[in-house]
Amino acid sequence: MPEMQRPLDTLNSAKGKRVIVETKNGKQYVGKLIAFDIHINIVLDDTEEVEDNEVKRKLGKVFLRGDTIILISPSE
Amino acid sequence: MPEMQRPLDTLNSAKGKRVIVETKNGKQYVGKLIAFDIHINIVLDDTEEVEDNEVKRKLGKVFLRGDTIILISPSE
Amino acid sequence: MPEMQRPLDTLNSAKGKRVIVETKNGKQYVGKLIAFDIHINIVLDDTEEVEDNEVKRKLGKVFLRGDTIILISPSE
Amino acid sequence: MPEMQRPLDTLNSAKGKRVIVETKNGKQYVGKLIAFDIHINIVLDDTEEVEDNEVKRKLGKVFLRGDTIILISPSE
Amino acid sequence: MPEMQRPLDTLNSAKGKRVIVETKNGKQYVGKLIAFDIHINIVLDDTEEVEDNEVKRKLGKVFLRGDTIILISPSE
Amino acid sequence: MPEMQRPLDTLNSAKGKRVIVETKNGKQYVGKLIAFDIHINIVLDDTEEVEDNEVKRKLGKVFLRGDTIILISPSE
Amino acid sequence: MPEMQRPLDTLNSAKGKRVIVETKNGKQYVGKLIAFDIHINIVLDDTEEVEDNEVKRKLGKVFLRGDTIILISPSE
Repeated sequence: MPEMQRPLDTLNSAKGKRVIVETKNGKQYVGKLIAFDIHINIVLDDTEEVEDNEVKRKLGKVFLRGDTIILISPSE
Repeated sequence: MPEMQRPLDTLNSAKGKRVIVETKNGKQYVGKLIAFDIHINIVLDDTEEVEDNEVKRKLGKVFLRGDTIILISPSE
Repeated sequence: MPEMQRPLDTLNSAKGKRVIVETKNGKQYVGKLIAFDIHINIVLDDTEEVEDNEVKRKLGKVFLRGDTIILISPSE
Repeated sequence: MPEMQRPLDTLNSAKGKRVIVETKNGKQYVGKLIAFDIHINIVLDDTEEVEDNEVKRKLGKVFLRGDTIILISPSE
Repeated sequence: MPEMQRPLDTLNSAKGKRVIVETKNGKQYVGKLIAFDIHINIVLDDTEEVEDNEVKRKLGKVFLRGDTIILISPSE
Repeated sequence: MPEMQRPLDTLNSAKGKRVIVETKNGKQYVGKLIAFDIHINIVLDDTEEVEDNEVKRKLGKVFLRGDTIILISPSE
Repeated sequence: MPEMQRPLDTLNSAKGKRVIVETKNGKQYVGKLIAFDIHINIVLDDTEEVEDNEVKRKLGKVFLRGDTIILISPSE
């Protein structure tokens, strides 16, 4: 049973798909994952800023600095 | 009596098993440990976000950035 | 369908355009992106400091230290 | 009078013994020190989470990320 | 239309001029920029500490550690 | 008049003597300095945890992680 | 008009003189600057801890860890 070995493989397979990103300031950004690097800097497109399950803002393309990110999860 | 020498060996032997992960924002994530790296970035699958012993959200696959993690423990 | 591969490419293509920058102290800076480096130190020109959607201050040219930045987004 | 020269020597001589670990979130973990590395990532076994001198949880094996640790002390 | 390429060029061209420096503890320092390095450690001269637009203290020469700095802006 | 040139020389000359260590969580540890390294990880022996000038706990040998330390001062 | 080029030159020229050091926990230390290194770890002698312009404690020799320091200024 082969398993994925590295965390960045998971991000790689999420490229082009919508993901939820949670940041240390308690916000969520939902958007299409366009790019990431080893610092976990990421770029989302068609991004919505979500707070308490409500869309607060539509932001288009967004660069998020890696050190503010808590988690990244594919949004079904 | 040989003992495990490195902390990452413990994570390695937990691969494929369910673990509890606690993060600096006071949340717990319980899921199957799929991958980790030397920064302690980890990926969980079938993840549940737990607060005050209640499941708050089911998240599927989750990438957690290492510098937000306090502890990782196998969940029995 | 070729896609941009690295987060810094997104910043590069935003050069000379107005961007929104959010910082960890809860402020927004809106200005023309003049320069950035790998630490995400950036320089904006014609900068406005915005709080609660109000312009609080006009700052002209501003150097923002990378580690205070949460996100950078082109402002339409 | 020879003296121990490096802090990690102290951790090494505590291996296999019970230690108290205090973390930045104000908690204590008491367990048998199984492993550590230069980042002070550590692994405890038979771990008890202690708050206000009361055992809150029994956790078995626990990986603690180095940058959350304030102190490590052998528990007599 | 050639544009400045690197953030430190902006600091370099501000040398010898008065700048506003904002730090993470919510203070402003206004002074003549004398020196800086790649960590954004800076030295100001004829420095005034400003809070709520009032001069709180005159400090003369001041070394500010880079990791406490949010922004640096030429003061007109 | 020769002067000590490096901060670690001061720690070195304090080895074997009692020192006060203050940490970012507002506590003081007073003990005999046994070891330190370049990260300012230190080990104290016969350690007392002090809060508001009262001894709260006797801890014996203690490893303190460098990045939690504010200051170290010989206690006369 | 030659100007000092590097921030550490300013610290170097302050050696042997009294300086004010402000730390992230809101305290001031006033003492004679004995030593510093590239991390801005510093050693003061004849140190006074000052809060709200009052001397709270006399500390003699003090090692201050660089990452807790906000500013260093010669005290006239």
